[in-house]
Amino acid sequence: MTYAIGVDFGGTQVRAARVDREGKVHAHRFVATAATNGPEAVIGQIERLVGAVMEDVGRAEILGLGVGAPGPVDPVAGIVLSAPSLHGWIDVPLRAILRERSGLPVAVHNDGNVAVLGEWRFGSGRGCRDFVYITVSTGIGGGIMADGRLLLGRKGMAGEIGHMIVAEHGPRCSCGNRGCWEAVASGTALSRAAGTALASGRRSSILALAAGEPIAGRHVMAAAAEGDEVALDLVRREGELLGLGLVGLLHLFSPERIALGGGVMHGLALLEPHIRHVVSERAMPAYRDVPICAAQLGDAAGVIGAAALMLADTSDFNP
Amino acid sequence: MTYAIGVDFGGTQVRAARVDREGKVHAHRFVATAATNGPEAVIGQIERLVGAVMEDVGRAEILGLGVGAPGPVDPVAGIVLSAPSLHGWIDVPLRAILRERSGLPVAVHNDGNVAVLGEWRFGSGRGCRDFVYITVSTGIGGGIMADGRLLLGRKGMAGEIGHMIVAEHGPRCSCGNRGCWEAVASGTALSRAAGTALASGRRSSILALAAGEPIAGRHVMAAAAEGDEVALDLVRREGELLGLGLVGLLHLFSPERIALGGGVMHGLALLEPHIRHVVSERAMPAYRDVPICAAQLGDAAGVIGAAALMLADTSDFNP
Repeated sequence: MTYAIGVDFGGTQVRAARVDREGKVHAHRFVATAATNGPEAVIGQIERLVGAVMEDVGRAEILGLGVGAPGPVDPVAGIVLSAPSLHGWIDVPLRAILRERSGLPVAVHNDGNVAVLGEWRFGSGRGCRDFVYITVSTGIGGGIMADGRLLLGRKGMAGEIGHMIVAEHGPRCSCGNRGCWEAVASGTALSRAAGTALASGRRSSILALAAGEPIAGRHVMAAAAEGDEVALDLVRREGELLGLGLVGLLHLFSPERIALGGGVMHGLALLEPHIRHVVSERAMPAYRDVPICAAQLGDAAGVIGAAALMLADTSDFNP
Repeated sequence: MTYAIGVDFGGTQVRAARVDREGKVHAHRFVATAATNGPEAVIGQIERLVGAVMEDVGRAEILGLGVGAPGPVDPVAGIVLSAPSLHGWIDVPLRAILRERSGLPVAVHNDGNVAVLGEWRFGSGRGCRDFVYITVSTGIGGGIMADGRLLLGRKGMAGEIGHMIVAEHGPRCSCGNRGCWEAVASGTALSRAAGTALASGRRSSILALAAGEPIAGRHVMAAAAEGDEVALDLVRREGELLGLGLVGLLHLFSPERIALGGGVMHGLALLEPHIRHVVSERAMPAYRDVPICAAQLGDAAGVIGAAALMLADTSDFNP
């Protein structure tokens, strides 16, 4: 049997998995990222996890190592240009380093691109030529498959779908801009909206569900599931704001399907009617029937998609 | 010598040209569209124009006939799905009809896609793998080249770049939605803003320049060129609104270059500083150096791009 190794790392976790040609995960390990210790510490974590998921498997059975890295990545050069959530990651030639140390073929892409590749080959996007994957959690990220290929653009920087402007004078975004889709519709934005609603003195079960923790999207969703009115209002508004961006993506990319993942999407059943309402009111008729569905691979989309970089039948994903 | 014939038609004109492999136009004819007379009348106009630009050239020298049609087109089936500016154009199998009558190979795409193809192969996008072309006139249209291929999406409907939502509660758009980029930043929107500014009683040379005609973008640009303050305010705001959409397109597509064409862009020199200001304030740093320049082919982008459908070295543009 042959496998590819997939690695996905960010500010919170480093993950590695051994994946077969059907996208099945045979071994999966993760650790908390040594985010403040510089690139060499994190690269050491990657090496140890890769070693662990390759145990009991002959080297000849491993096709290669695919990596999804946070922040902008130059996939042609295999360089992580910057990783804002990690200390000291500027222009790290990760492909060359890992190739030398592992002896394996290596490909490096950004995490949004490997996640869309995973969902497209083995999850919610199977069978589509044109597909958009969106992850809504702290921020809004994702990626685009166009005619069966990753949309990369100059320096591999295409697909920053959280950074369309949907409100000129909207709240400040993590990128420095104002009114990006991410700034109004991410989990962070939903938490802020919940704080504002509760500060107005409306009665709600959200605070009790948060139980002293900072209010997060999941507390709002849990309260809404119980019928809490403040939470239901917040969910309606979150669905509308997600819908505004989705309408633009439908018109720009004309995908056959859009898949939604990330923490906020655990509440997709509650959000969906509001998203659907905006799409049916605002998208042009020919785009309204495009399925908007849940992503299928959950947290594993990244490692599976990273492995898929080495499972591709063409060289499209591995410049 | 070999040539391709390009046809571009819309609510105003039907154009045809004979174009060589270097994109040079050897014959170019146009007539006012028989827009209210149904598909057969317009198809007859196309046939006559094609015949005219093929005069004096042997049939063996003609590679084929490419067509840019208004509204959504299914390029795989060669069917014009609907053409809002023309009477009776619903599901017209234009490729089959023209192939039968002309005996030539025929390809049909929508007008935005043929225009970006023309600018990319023979104009402002030459040498780019990733390129966005935008035309700002009555509406906002355009198209996208991604990794050297037309971005088509499901049913060839990708690239409706005028219909990203940039203002949730903005003015009504021609598509029925509110707050699309087209609704706030097209020539139509600029005319409306000029009307509002003049209704407030501010002194301006715009009215004198319009000389009794409805106020159009070109009157605003002409007044601004003379230093008229109302017009300069309108131009500043138009540049800002164009910039808002451009920031989203930079982040989504990461093009190597963006080209702007269409009537409003005759004022590009006046608009450019305001566009640049928004991009430098709002785009992420790695995207700020992307050239935003004038389209080069003017009104001929459509016929040249339509001809380019038959000049392609691959079958990418001619499914």
